[in-house]
Amino acid sequence: MHGVFLPGNATAEVREYPVPEAGVGQVLVQVGASGICGSDIGFIYNGYKTHKGLDGAPAYKGVIAGHEPSGRIVAAGPGVTRFGVGDDVIVYHIHGCGRCRNCRAGYFISCTDQPHKAAYGWQRDGGHAEFVLADESTCIPLPTGLSFVDGALIACGFGTAYEGLRRTGVHGGEDLLVVGLGPVGLAAAMIGRMLGARRVIGVERSPERIEFVKSTGLVEDIVQADDQAVANILKLTGGVGCQVTVDCSGSTPGRSTAVEAAAEWGRVGFLGEGGRLETEVSDTLLHKQLTLTASWVTSLQGMEDVANMIAAEGLSPETVVSHRLDLRKADEAYRIAAGGATGKVVLIPAGAPQRDES
Amino acid sequence: MHGVFLPGNATAEVREYPVPEAGVGQVLVQVGASGICGSDIGFIYNGYKTHKGLDGAPAYKGVIAGHEPSGRIVAAGPGVTRFGVGDDVIVYHIHGCGRCRNCRAGYFISCTDQPHKAAYGWQRDGGHAEFVLADESTCIPLPTGLSFVDGALIACGFGTAYEGLRRTGVHGGEDLLVVGLGPVGLAAAMIGRMLGARRVIGVERSPERIEFVKSTGLVEDIVQADDQAVANILKLTGGVGCQVTVDCSGSTPGRSTAVEAAAEWGRVGFLGEGGRLETEVSDTLLHKQLTLTASWVTSLQGMEDVANMIAAEGLSPETVVSHRLDLRKADEAYRIAAGGATGKVVLIPAGAPQRDES
Amino acid sequence: MHGVFLPGNATAEVREYPVPEAGVGQVLVQVGASGICGSDIGFIYNGYKTHKGLDGAPAYKGVIAGHEPSGRIVAAGPGVTRFGVGDDVIVYHIHGCGRCRNCRAGYFISCTDQPHKAAYGWQRDGGHAEFVLADESTCIPLPTGLSFVDGALIACGFGTAYEGLRRTGVHGGEDLLVVGLGPVGLAAAMIGRMLGARRVIGVERSPERIEFVKSTGLVEDIVQADDQAVANILKLTGGVGCQVTVDCSGSTPGRSTAVEAAAEWGRVGFLGEGGRLETEVSDTLLHKQLTLTASWVTSLQGMEDVANMIAAEGLSPETVVSHRLDLRKADEAYRIAAGGATGKVVLIPAGAPQRDES
Amino acid sequence: MHGVFLPGNATAEVREYPVPEAGVGQVLVQVGASGICGSDIGFIYNGYKTHKGLDGAPAYKGVIAGHEPSGRIVAAGPGVTRFGVGDDVIVYHIHGCGRCRNCRAGYFISCTDQPHKAAYGWQRDGGHAEFVLADESTCIPLPTGLSFVDGALIACGFGTAYEGLRRTGVHGGEDLLVVGLGPVGLAAAMIGRMLGARRVIGVERSPERIEFVKSTGLVEDIVQADDQAVANILKLTGGVGCQVTVDCSGSTPGRSTAVEAAAEWGRVGFLGEGGRLETEVSDTLLHKQLTLTASWVTSLQGMEDVANMIAAEGLSPETVVSHRLDLRKADEAYRIAAGGATGKVVLIPAGAPQRDES
Repeated sequence: MHGVFLPGNATAEVREYPVPEAGVGQVLVQVGASGICGSDIGFIYNGYKTHKGLDGAPAYKGVIAGHEPSGRIVAAGPGVTRFGVGDDVIVYHIHGCGRCRNCRAGYFISCTDQPHKAAYGWQRDGGHAEFVLADESTCIPLPTGLSFVDGALIACGFGTAYEGLRRTGVHGGEDLLVVGLGPVGLAAAMIGRMLGARRVIGVERSPERIEFVKSTGLVEDIVQADDQAVANILKLTGGVGCQVTVDCSGSTPGRSTAVEAAAEWGRVGFLGEGGRLETEVSDTLLHKQLTLTASWVTSLQGMEDVANMIAAEGLSPETVVSHRLDLRKADEAYRIAAGGATGKVVLIPAGAPQRDES
Repeated sequence: MHGVFLPGNATAEVREYPVPEAGVGQVLVQVGASGICGSDIGFIYNGYKTHKGLDGAPAYKGVIAGHEPSGRIVAAGPGVTRFGVGDDVIVYHIHGCGRCRNCRAGYFISCTDQPHKAAYGWQRDGGHAEFVLADESTCIPLPTGLSFVDGALIACGFGTAYEGLRRTGVHGGEDLLVVGLGPVGLAAAMIGRMLGARRVIGVERSPERIEFVKSTGLVEDIVQADDQAVANILKLTGGVGCQVTVDCSGSTPGRSTAVEAAAEWGRVGFLGEGGRLETEVSDTLLHKQLTLTASWVTSLQGMEDVANMIAAEGLSPETVVSHRLDLRKADEAYRIAAGGATGKVVLIPAGAPQRDES
Repeated sequence: MHGVFLPGNATAEVREYPVPEAGVGQVLVQVGASGICGSDIGFIYNGYKTHKGLDGAPAYKGVIAGHEPSGRIVAAGPGVTRFGVGDDVIVYHIHGCGRCRNCRAGYFISCTDQPHKAAYGWQRDGGHAEFVLADESTCIPLPTGLSFVDGALIACGFGTAYEGLRRTGVHGGEDLLVVGLGPVGLAAAMIGRMLGARRVIGVERSPERIEFVKSTGLVEDIVQADDQAVANILKLTGGVGCQVTVDCSGSTPGRSTAVEAAAEWGRVGFLGEGGRLETEVSDTLLHKQLTLTASWVTSLQGMEDVANMIAAEGLSPETVVSHRLDLRKADEAYRIAAGGATGKVVLIPAGAPQRDES
Repeated sequence: MHGVFLPGNATAEVREYPVPEAGVGQVLVQVGASGICGSDIGFIYNGYKTHKGLDGAPAYKGVIAGHEPSGRIVAAGPGVTRFGVGDDVIVYHIHGCGRCRNCRAGYFISCTDQPHKAAYGWQRDGGHAEFVLADESTCIPLPTGLSFVDGALIACGFGTAYEGLRRTGVHGGEDLLVVGLGPVGLAAAMIGRMLGARRVIGVERSPERIEFVKSTGLVEDIVQADDQAVANILKLTGGVGCQVTVDCSGSTPGRSTAVEAAAEWGRVGFLGEGGRLETEVSDTLLHKQLTLTASWVTSLQGMEDVANMIAAEGLSPETVVSHRLDLRKADEAYRIAAGGATGKVVLIPAGAPQRDES
């Protein structure tokens, strides 16, 4: 089969790999779609980086890339109990030890047993291939009515957006501000509306992206990310600000906008990685009595919940996709994504399974 | 080895069994202590009963009884990652499928995959033996400073009390009422204090049990469970009632006491199984703006948390034990427990491992 | 001016009263609309009743009836600071002492200073008149875009529904069950949707009311309140039940439906007054890990919040009104309401102020 | 009577004032004790400063200083309902309009009606005098068993500490870190313990203050505020950090310590005014899944609650006082406080009322 290797020099190579076989507790998933994530670009494609807990070694171990796969199970190894051949699944992007406190609570992302933890597309073969070998413990049912592209999106950005928004407690009758309208920001806009937000205001720097976002209809008002952004948000909200704000930009100024544009008694969610939080405290945080929640990805059950909600609500995460490319065009796809695509870039293998989405 | 079989006719038989061998993902635990639970008496010892989801068949499948084991790992099968030989553990009393939404959130107790779910001492061999075969996924570390008896108690009652109390949100500066001072009620008294409750008031019907409870020092005031109980609790609290009340009696009148003695804006926890909830609503619930939480056992991570807290606080769950008997005297032990023992009854196998509790 | 007196014999008398004058901290409100509440019928119209804390004396003190007024301020006494002549207001239905702990938290309804507490239409003159004398402390701004009838509805049922639903934590992506589709139930349906509920299922006994409810479009599915109700709700929800259920029926069977049709991990809100709660506990509450919240009316700030949300969302509480009558036809209006009107009955004084609702 | 005027040049003048008379809704309080707060020093004593919402004018209006009074009511004006002559009270330090949304919720501190808002000791005469004229709406009962000094402390720092800690949800079984061991920090230590914290670790820069804090016994471990502080806290907690941390230093490095020393899934409370929050985000906030709550003072009901809890628990806020001076020595007292007193500085008028604290 084909699989994408990332040499770390801003290219993507399509290589040949054998189709793997499902071991104990594993399933073989024929990939329907596999998303490219900002962290793939920042930590692998443009040059290998490490992160906390890895002792300086690159986080990427030379495996098949892609941590956002969704597809159909074509083989199941011994000991698999919940899923079977023919089931369509989303693959949660990290396989945790399953035994530490965080894994037991469903947060594989926070697995504390480094030797028994492996992320798809980082430390074990991932979704940029025709097939991916997945542990059953990381499989989430893909509900009827959703496409594999929807599933791939839920595998990372929509799960992250859901968790971050749930921690803010957003509900109907509230205005939601989303800072940064990349794929995670658009996910937050869609999920925020689904959770009840009356109005979604977006903040974005890139004019091209603003045009794309307008075409999706996911955001009522878009404010240009400049030094008038907070003033403009206050103007849109009668001087009140937004009850809930989330930063999906991962930037220091983006987080400032999120706290400064929050209403008194508001809740601020930090979802985006990177950068810093730098803010005055008395007037901005204390006197507004703010609550700030920092959120990292989601749990297995959170991903299952949001997938079910999205399906029941009849939503289409695919709306945030701007580019779909054949797996074999991975190099071009990565170039587009790295160049600041307006929306999400997704790889589709040739011969990918088809869903009856009716 | 010896193991206890319960024929269902109010006797307990000690039989001979082979020592089992640890399979994939399993450990062999040499039992240090194994508690007798009220549900063992009510659903097995006195006559087999069934419950919801079991289609009329008895819940007990003729296995070695006992769902509250704690002991030392003496062998580990392939695929075991977190625990090893020599580790002392508490065994969470149900093995869930590990794949359903509830299992993924750590609530094996609420596993929805009936064929892949088995409770120790009910559907698979339990702790009333010298050895018990446990899935690693159900093992919780027994912290330094706790005894195997402590571990056995945490495996059921203390875990249940912790979960139920956390849902009430009890904190320091509040009065806690515990209705029913059996083993779970005493656990609630100890854990409630640990969580900060300023004062613990207990309600109990049995005079013998009241004497035993007094000797434990776990409860400041004990109110006799009669038709003056609510009036007496109000008297003890300046007419206010208790900010938090929990029912551990599992009885209809006990629950009435819990809601009627709750203060305005109070929180009521239901922990005890069985019986009904029957109450006037307007004055008792609505006008007091009460929140009621019903809680069933706890999660794997909840059990790990409470074990660690108990150890850090230097508490001794053993305090609630009134009778320790040799495993081979299981028949006598069950007779004592079924006769309404004042405190908890625990079985200790001959040759049980010893802990250095310093 | 005209005012309605209730003799307690199932009639309503329109009498002549002097127009009152605004004292310190008071405003004179020209009534735009005044609703008839179920408690007016049950506790006053059909025969005087008392309630807890009143030592057996009737709760109604022979004053002008009506505790759900909304209107325009036409005079303001000394010391009034927030409101002025020409302001349109909702009147919160109880004047509390303002100094006890509950009043300070905004819950005048739970004022603990009996001598300094008075409910409009019960212990002080109420809204069934051309004018009502209101303490400024009980006035809530009527937002632009809402009618006086909307304001009258918010003054009681919509405030109650909002508070009860917020305590359940309902949000988008969840199914909401409303048991009892009288005016408060319909308010709960509208507010529940506003807070984000994906689908609202209603339960109602009366065929006439079911027809009326269908005409409002506030509820997706209506289930007949009979012994198949729970089974039918489960059928509608794929066997899952509803994540959030609220009882607005105030009846014992209605509350049973609310707890039995709640999904695992669900939240149940009790809003309706009267009757009892009687339920099996283990399977229905504990094993489903339910949280039950009992809620009484709302706070001053809760009423202000919900009024603002309703206006911002462009909703029309008036939808739940089935009958509007001239104040002087109070007797007929009460007869209709007492006879089980399909929707809400509202009194409008002749010459009531008009709002520009554009 | 004597009263303290602050010219803004680092001196305090004792002047003569007439004893005021209680108007409508007011009481005359004979001051038992009156604390000096850090904001008195920073915003008035050392030079007048303004703050947000004041359009550049100094916040201090030349009135009698002191916003932390506690004393005995000696006269009550008309319309006073809850309190009477002889009642001992704590005075909440701001008089709000009582009609805006925040005032209605009990948060006079956040009153949004600037013309009808006045803080004692800032915009209206305060507690540094033999008598203070107080609106009844700002009076909190001083519970039996507490001294006037206790009351003065609750009026500001202990109320603030309580609110900030309640928002973190701290409960028993958790380690609490308090950064900055000035009067508010010591209040947080005492209240944190009262709310259940198992262990309180303090961080402080000043060696003199560290010595004083040791003498109070309020903190188990004290860590020097230097660049090894976080490492030392981790060492004390087995590498885990503290489940709850609060910043009472109001400093940028103090807040960094609070977020960096927080355990995974921890909650961080910001209580101290001034300075900034500057932190790395991914590893420090997101990957630790932190919740941060910013809290400003407390509500009227919060102050009443904490006073009652402190009394019921038998605690003595006075423990944090290092200096008690006669009112007429205000200049010396302010010099001590401004010089970085080890603990709290309190003024006691000659002839102050005495409490029977038995």
